[in-house]
Amino acid sequence: MEKLSVIKIGGNIIDDETQLSSFLKEFAAIEGKKILIHGGGKLATRVAEAMGISQEMVNGRRITDAETLKVVTMVYAGFINKNIVAKLQSAGCNAVGLSGADGNIIKARKRTATTIDYGFAGDIDEVNSGFIGQLLSKDAALVFSPITHNGNGQLLNTNADTIAQEIAKAMSTFYEITLVYCFEKKGVLLDPEDDDSIIPVIDKLYFEKLKEDLVISAGMIPKLDNAFEALSAGVKHIFIGHAAELPQLILHQSGTSIVHE
Amino acid sequence: MEKLSVIKIGGNIIDDETQLSSFLKEFAAIEGKKILIHGGGKLATRVAEAMGISQEMVNGRRITDAETLKVVTMVYAGFINKNIVAKLQSAGCNAVGLSGADGNIIKARKRTATTIDYGFAGDIDEVNSGFIGQLLSKDAALVFSPITHNGNGQLLNTNADTIAQEIAKAMSTFYEITLVYCFEKKGVLLDPEDDDSIIPVIDKLYFEKLKEDLVISAGMIPKLDNAFEALSAGVKHIFIGHAAELPQLILHQSGTSIVHE
Repeated sequence: MEKLSVIKIGGNIIDDETQLSSFLKEFAAIEGKKILIHGGGKLATRVAEAMGISQEMVNGRRITDAETLKVVTMVYAGFINKNIVAKLQSAGCNAVGLSGADGNIIKARKRTATTIDYGFAGDIDEVNSGFIGQLLSKDAALVFSPITHNGNGQLLNTNADTIAQEIAKAMSTFYEITLVYCFEKKGVLLDPEDDDSIIPVIDKLYFEKLKEDLVISAGMIPKLDNAFEALSAGVKHIFIGHAAELPQLILHQSGTSIVHE
Repeated sequence: MEKLSVIKIGGNIIDDETQLSSFLKEFAAIEGKKILIHGGGKLATRVAEAMGISQEMVNGRRITDAETLKVVTMVYAGFINKNIVAKLQSAGCNAVGLSGADGNIIKARKRTATTIDYGFAGDIDEVNSGFIGQLLSKDAALVFSPITHNGNGQLLNTNADTIAQEIAKAMSTFYEITLVYCFEKKGVLLDPEDDDSIIPVIDKLYFEKLKEDLVISAGMIPKLDNAFEALSAGVKHIFIGHAAELPQLILHQSGTSIVHE
């Protein structure tokens, strides 16, 4: 089976021009077929503030009202996506920037309001693996912004971690997938205060114990739940670690590896 | 030779949600391979104003300083491009939204400052017809925002008319091209004050006479100069007319047809 790297880069790295440029050079150097999914970063908040659109966050997620949807579509699918593509081109890596609406690649539905109304937030229904496969055959890296659509003309703001996971799962039928979550920490930490307390390998049993012992941070639990689900669905390798260590992460010379057992 | 429609839609139509939706339904219904190039519209000016970035226009062209480049990248490549793609999907037309940086499709260079410094405005050097051809073979319409890049990581704001013309010229080696400029007038007018004074056909000789007689508007002259250049370069049909009459325009039942002689 041919290999495919699916790499998610978090918002804090995107906000830092130097870190982002250096990360993109490493991404450009990865051999073989590859997909990058980028998050949003603080630029959307800054643009919204400058435009006088107030922002509300609940549990770390943005409440996407109609005006905020405009802002995130502009910032994520426009500014961030096209700047990443231009930087990859300058690093000699051909790239095509996409949203989930392009090629009807990611169909989502507006999240139903319960106690919290997330607004125009999208939960993924379907990934068009056929179209992704056709685009990958053109020898260009694909760069996804976290914007999807519902098929009826409505764009939706969608969690970038979830997009990475759903793309990895959908493509695992055709490729041997390595899924890498890059962020500003060196991996899953035993002690959130100690940046060097990296857990090198987490299997399901150890994860249950870590949860019981309340060791890992609350924000990490859904990430890991999703990772185990992706492994069950056929994703071969999952790594979590620092964006500055992408080449080492892929070889598992740094960061945390998530394994079945 | 297979047919390819290259259609440019102007800013005034993009600003009007009802006109845009109805235009996109007609575009979705065009048979065969097709490319849409959209302009900017007034939204960029509104966003810039809301963000306190002052805008300067010279001869109808925007002076693109660094902050304005951010705004047009957000608005053109993000908001407008992705909304058009989502609307085409809902009309049953698969579409992929692109900038000139994507797939390294349009390489441009920053316009040299003379008496006027246009800032980050791009003049086109090269259209990657091979990559466009590969994408067209996927049976999706391509939707271009007027943003290009210089290959060294710099995005550039580029005139949408020029992009349409350069794409049409580059693809004319492989396809029988129909190039259509859609805007808010019914064609090239004999009397700018009379919307029904449409000139049905303009050949080179007649164009020279119209210029001499100072009949057509100043803004129309470069459009027509470019049109004749495109015909010489191999573009087969060129029509100019109202966005509401796209199906009639393509059949030349309305609007102005530009012909060699």
